[in-house]
Amino acid sequence: MKKSDFPIGIFDSGIGGLTVLKEICKVLPYENIVYFGDTARVPYGIRSPETVTKYALECIRYLLNHKIKLLVVACNTASAISLKDIRENVKIPVVGVIEPGAKAAITITKNKKIGVIGTEATVKSGAYRKAITEFLPQAEVFELACPLFVPLVEEGWTDDIIAYLIAEKYLKSMINKAVDTLVLGCTHYPLIKNVIQKIMGTVCLVDSAIETSLTVSKILNDNNLLKDNSISVNKKFFVTDSPDKFIAVGERFLNDKIINIERIAL
Amino acid sequence: MKKSDFPIGIFDSGIGGLTVLKEICKVLPYENIVYFGDTARVPYGIRSPETVTKYALECIRYLLNHKIKLLVVACNTASAISLKDIRENVKIPVVGVIEPGAKAAITITKNKKIGVIGTEATVKSGAYRKAITEFLPQAEVFELACPLFVPLVEEGWTDDIIAYLIAEKYLKSMINKAVDTLVLGCTHYPLIKNVIQKIMGTVCLVDSAIETSLTVSKILNDNNLLKDNSISVNKKFFVTDSPDKFIAVGERFLNDKIINIERIAL
Repeated sequence: MKKSDFPIGIFDSGIGGLTVLKEICKVLPYENIVYFGDTARVPYGIRSPETVTKYALECIRYLLNHKIKLLVVACNTASAISLKDIRENVKIPVVGVIEPGAKAAITITKNKKIGVIGTEATVKSGAYRKAITEFLPQAEVFELACPLFVPLVEEGWTDDIIAYLIAEKYLKSMINKAVDTLVLGCTHYPLIKNVIQKIMGTVCLVDSAIETSLTVSKILNDNNLLKDNSISVNKKFFVTDSPDKFIAVGERFLNDKIINIERIAL
Repeated sequence: MKKSDFPIGIFDSGIGGLTVLKEICKVLPYENIVYFGDTARVPYGIRSPETVTKYALECIRYLLNHKIKLLVVACNTASAISLKDIRENVKIPVVGVIEPGAKAAITITKNKKIGVIGTEATVKSGAYRKAITEFLPQAEVFELACPLFVPLVEEGWTDDIIAYLIAEKYLKSMINKAVDTLVLGCTHYPLIKNVIQKIMGTVCLVDSAIETSLTVSKILNDNNLLKDNSISVNKKFFVTDSPDKFIAVGERFLNDKIINIERIAL
């Protein structure tokens, strides 16, 4: 097997990374993919940095047994907190979701006021702020945790008055700060993009999943690792808890069937 | 040390069991208490039965090292799914929260239509239905998962229009079923009791935490295990993730300071 035929590995704390997988499949439809969701310990966004890194490394060790050619850390929380530790433990290219999102925001903003919304752990880490100000030191970055968005999306209440009121309550401060760009710094948030856009008006939303898929494509291309044929394109899913809920919610995320799925014990 | 001076052990998946601790302290103010919250793996309510039981047994094994005289499984999900397995592994009396809640509901109901709200895992287990119909076979039991209530309570949004609309959306079906009694089958729910009561009108709400504290008191009394003096009353807390959030949210739950707390690795 040629190295370019090896799968891309995608790690997430649970189901949210499927929004990243979906975008990668759009840009790179021939690629084989192995997805790992730590559904027995999701969500990471409420946990301490040490625990997030411990869990992430355990999962990635498993994923590395599957001869992947590139690792995507699709979870914003793990990307924000553990990327350095992950890179130290992995010999293949590693793509997190923070840097692609931060770079896109920098390109888009005109008034240099950038908002970032995410989990408590992502916001507390300040990872987006660091990534944005590294490239654009004059940027003002406003970070905000929106803990109710994830359960709201998983419940499927993404387009009703409740979603609107919750989003309005959280995002009021972002409107007051007059940001012109808002990074959706959690894999679940693209699923309530419509509601967020309604509240934020003309503010430009950055979907880290899309930006990450473009980064993945570029790295594979630069390293001659693109799979160049449509023969036997496989998607394999590993989860740490029962696959039932992952399949039920995941098929809504992907708008596609989830077939090749296996529960594993860490 | 007399056996009656041994602490009561309280196990919970996280922070919610503090509502049970609070009620136990009201009824039994002299007792020593060791509380264990599995905050590195909370919430249990979204997980499969096998995973809930595995995690619960790991935590309880730790708690048993602390010479407890009685074990309270304060987590509704673990009580619903794992109580049998826990009892098989423990030689001291074990009190879950399901049976006390179910018995109270049976005593209260007049029309024999009883509602139960809880996590997805608790509802799926059918544990409340089984416990209620065992004692009152003619009872009609309506079980309903309300996944957004826990994050709503943890966010502290327990008394605004959003809480009201979410509760209304969930509880509509309970009103249609004309239940006259509703069991709050999750440790977090007593904290949004006011909103639930407003929507349910004259329906009687059963708070499992209160019922459980009465059961604990009775068992200790029946077994001559009541601590009968107020000398050196201790509360000790163990958590599996950083204590910061547990303290911040927990003090709101308890309306009291949390001091003697330690993070442990399982």
